[in-house]
Amino acid sequence: MFITFEGPEGAGKSTALRAVAERLREAGRAVLTTREPGAGEFGGRIREILLHGDEMPAESELFLFLADRASHVRRVIRPALERGEWVLCDRYADSTLVYQAYVRRLDADFVRRANRFATGGLVPDRTFLLDLDPEIGLARLTSRDRLDAQPIEFHRAVRAGFLNLASEEPHRWRILDASSDPKIVIEAILNEI
Amino acid sequence: MFITFEGPEGAGKSTALRAVAERLREAGRAVLTTREPGAGEFGGRIREILLHGDEMPAESELFLFLADRASHVRRVIRPALERGEWVLCDRYADSTLVYQAYVRRLDADFVRRANRFATGGLVPDRTFLLDLDPEIGLARLTSRDRLDAQPIEFHRAVRAGFLNLASEEPHRWRILDASSDPKIVIEAILNEI
Repeated sequence: MFITFEGPEGAGKSTALRAVAERLREAGRAVLTTREPGAGEFGGRIREILLHGDEMPAESELFLFLADRASHVRRVIRPALERGEWVLCDRYADSTLVYQAYVRRLDADFVRRANRFATGGLVPDRTFLLDLDPEIGLARLTSRDRLDAQPIEFHRAVRAGFLNLASEEPHRWRILDASSDPKIVIEAILNEI
Repeated sequence: MFITFEGPEGAGKSTALRAVAERLREAGRAVLTTREPGAGEFGGRIREILLHGDEMPAESELFLFLADRASHVRRVIRPALERGEWVLCDRYADSTLVYQAYVRRLDADFVRRANRFATGGLVPDRTFLLDLDPEIGLARLTSRDRLDAQPIEFHRAVRAGFLNLASEEPHRWRILDASSDPKIVIEAILNEI
């Protein structure tokens, strides 16, 4: 099972992911937890440029995320799935479609095609959207990187983009209210999988 | 005028480019010389990963070249062309098509489309192919990076790829015999432009 967690920063994706992984391991499953961008040494170098480098054209940002994803799928995610492990991933191709196409307004057809090329067609079995009013999400953050420092309209567009994607593929997505008690969110995820 | 220099390492691209730029400046032209990958601070970080990092999937390599190109076109090449300067560039989109599609066998349609997206459709006015038997080219190199260290079949495929591209767009490409005296190569380029 390949499960991804999507949503804005501050929604509690990584906390939920860790808690779900722990409960799955207690139930005897082999679980790999990972994230994008930036798994491994290669990803770490790309993450550093993306999150802490200078401003860059939106097209360059897109291609850096894709470079990271192409390596991540081939070196980390697919090998784990082939070993029979569950893979829980914090952000994946949907984030690129939301941030680079819906928000930055790059050509969505191209971004979808490039995502398919980068992933070799690997689509998650289930994607959990931790949906949250951006004002609540931003208030939760203790430090902000280059993306978090964008104006509120940016974060509203991110939310609309995720909800739009979820509505296009309801069989894959589950939308969770990330403003509720984290325990409730985690139980909802465990019930689903 | 946007002029690119293509061909294998060791063909004398950068030497010819510098000599042509000097002669153009003597004739009163404003000339910008640049290269791919790796112009500027952003490009330098990507070049470092590409040429001196660990092995990576071919798809990641492709996307890193594209990330560099998208920034290079928007921040360096287009602004110089808009100022009325001549731009001479050592490698450009054709190199990606040769190395990543012809040689690494990634989907050529996707690579072409991704190149158009990265460049915003900016095509050189003239491209000079410094064509050379790979055994001569490799013998000329005093140090080798990750690409140069590939087997001879790799370099033969590179040569065939460039010749193939040049034959597809004869109005744009000029093929030069890079095994001849560098002065002859430089005069041939100056005569052409």
